[in-house]
Amino acid sequence: MSGTLYGIGLGPGDPDLMTLKAHRLISAAKVVAYPAPDTGDSFARSIAAGAISSSAIEIPIVIPMRVARFPAQSVYDEAADAIGAHLDAGTDVAVLCEGDPFFYGSFMYLFGRLAERHKAEIVPGVTSMTACAAMAARPLCARNEILTVVPATVDEALLRDRLQASGAAVIMKVGRHLARVRKVIEDLNLTSRAIYVAHASLPQQTVVPLIDAPETAPYFSMILIGGTDPYVKT
Amino acid sequence: MSGTLYGIGLGPGDPDLMTLKAHRLISAAKVVAYPAPDTGDSFARSIAAGAISSSAIEIPIVIPMRVARFPAQSVYDEAADAIGAHLDAGTDVAVLCEGDPFFYGSFMYLFGRLAERHKAEIVPGVTSMTACAAMAARPLCARNEILTVVPATVDEALLRDRLQASGAAVIMKVGRHLARVRKVIEDLNLTSRAIYVAHASLPQQTVVPLIDAPETAPYFSMILIGGTDPYVKT
Repeated sequence: MSGTLYGIGLGPGDPDLMTLKAHRLISAAKVVAYPAPDTGDSFARSIAAGAISSSAIEIPIVIPMRVARFPAQSVYDEAADAIGAHLDAGTDVAVLCEGDPFFYGSFMYLFGRLAERHKAEIVPGVTSMTACAAMAARPLCARNEILTVVPATVDEALLRDRLQASGAAVIMKVGRHLARVRKVIEDLNLTSRAIYVAHASLPQQTVVPLIDAPETAPYFSMILIGGTDPYVKT
Repeated sequence: MSGTLYGIGLGPGDPDLMTLKAHRLISAAKVVAYPAPDTGDSFARSIAAGAISSSAIEIPIVIPMRVARFPAQSVYDEAADAIGAHLDAGTDVAVLCEGDPFFYGSFMYLFGRLAERHKAEIVPGVTSMTACAAMAARPLCARNEILTVVPATVDEALLRDRLQASGAAVIMKVGRHLARVRKVIEDLNLTSRAIYVAHASLPQQTVVPLIDAPETAPYFSMILIGGTDPYVKT
């Protein structure tokens, strides 16, 4: 009998923001896989570290950073083979995912390769988006408001168009796009509503009005433009 | 010294999808507040029930259902007074919130009334949005895709406009708007990508292609229109 592929959301970074289910499944897992950079530590592994059994087999999925914008499909082919072998042998595999597996997560590439042949279960996690709103103490959207989530990687005209049409908006993965995104937000007169958040829920967390944001932003940074519902006093 | 107001996200319904932090704070809470209907049980309380201390003081915030679309501001005034009295006495208060407190949550109304005078901490939770994607086994959005979150309560022209412009979309709080929303999705030829989810993560959960959705939907139902990123095989 085939094992189950678990795609487990770990939340934004604070291990305390893992779900009870994530913690339980990871603690029991005999095989654990996670994305890892080619140099340095895996962020996903660091979130779950306290739960991973010392006897667990670990499968780091090493994503070369230089191709981070373009999914390294051969890397996922190989990882799917390695994970698939354990599933074929009847062993469950827990794949650790920063945030939520199906919200801008790379787990989708493994899921696409494995879910047809194997039982799969997704454990949703706290997204960095709502974690940023929580840490910024700024409600994201209320009642009838439309929320637009835009990766900072989209082209400038599209970003401008969508922010203009939005009540509440979140710009994800700001990183090296900060200057360009800030310019668009300024042009649209949204700066007074914009908050910059980096490393939400971690000790090195930064939360500042966009106008006070640093010149350079890490990959795990975000800009929130809160809604304007009149019932929400902030 | 004033107590701390905790706005605690409980996740979509399965108690196992509470965060470790939510569970710990609720277990320790001496005063617990939660939204409740004027008849029947509180959904928020039911999620957290296993964690609430039998000696905790409970403050149900009773929202008359007939005004659910228009926040009952006097109800929140009274609840804020009751909670504020405990905070003034130096006792922390845990406010239980379905999903995430700042993602279409009614906690915002209490936060707006109390956060200026009292210390407040928001504990983000798993949103129904990513829980629905997980239960539907359908990735929500990947890489450069824009995600639009639209409450079903917006007017039809706006709904049509935003869905037309969207890659991935989530329509929240479908409930009695199902027929109208379904019509818009059909007109836009998006039905083949649309999934209907009700009561995500609960025993009575329903996940079906929109075309097979029932005629009437509960308030806690949602329609997902997944993205079309070519790297995400589904």
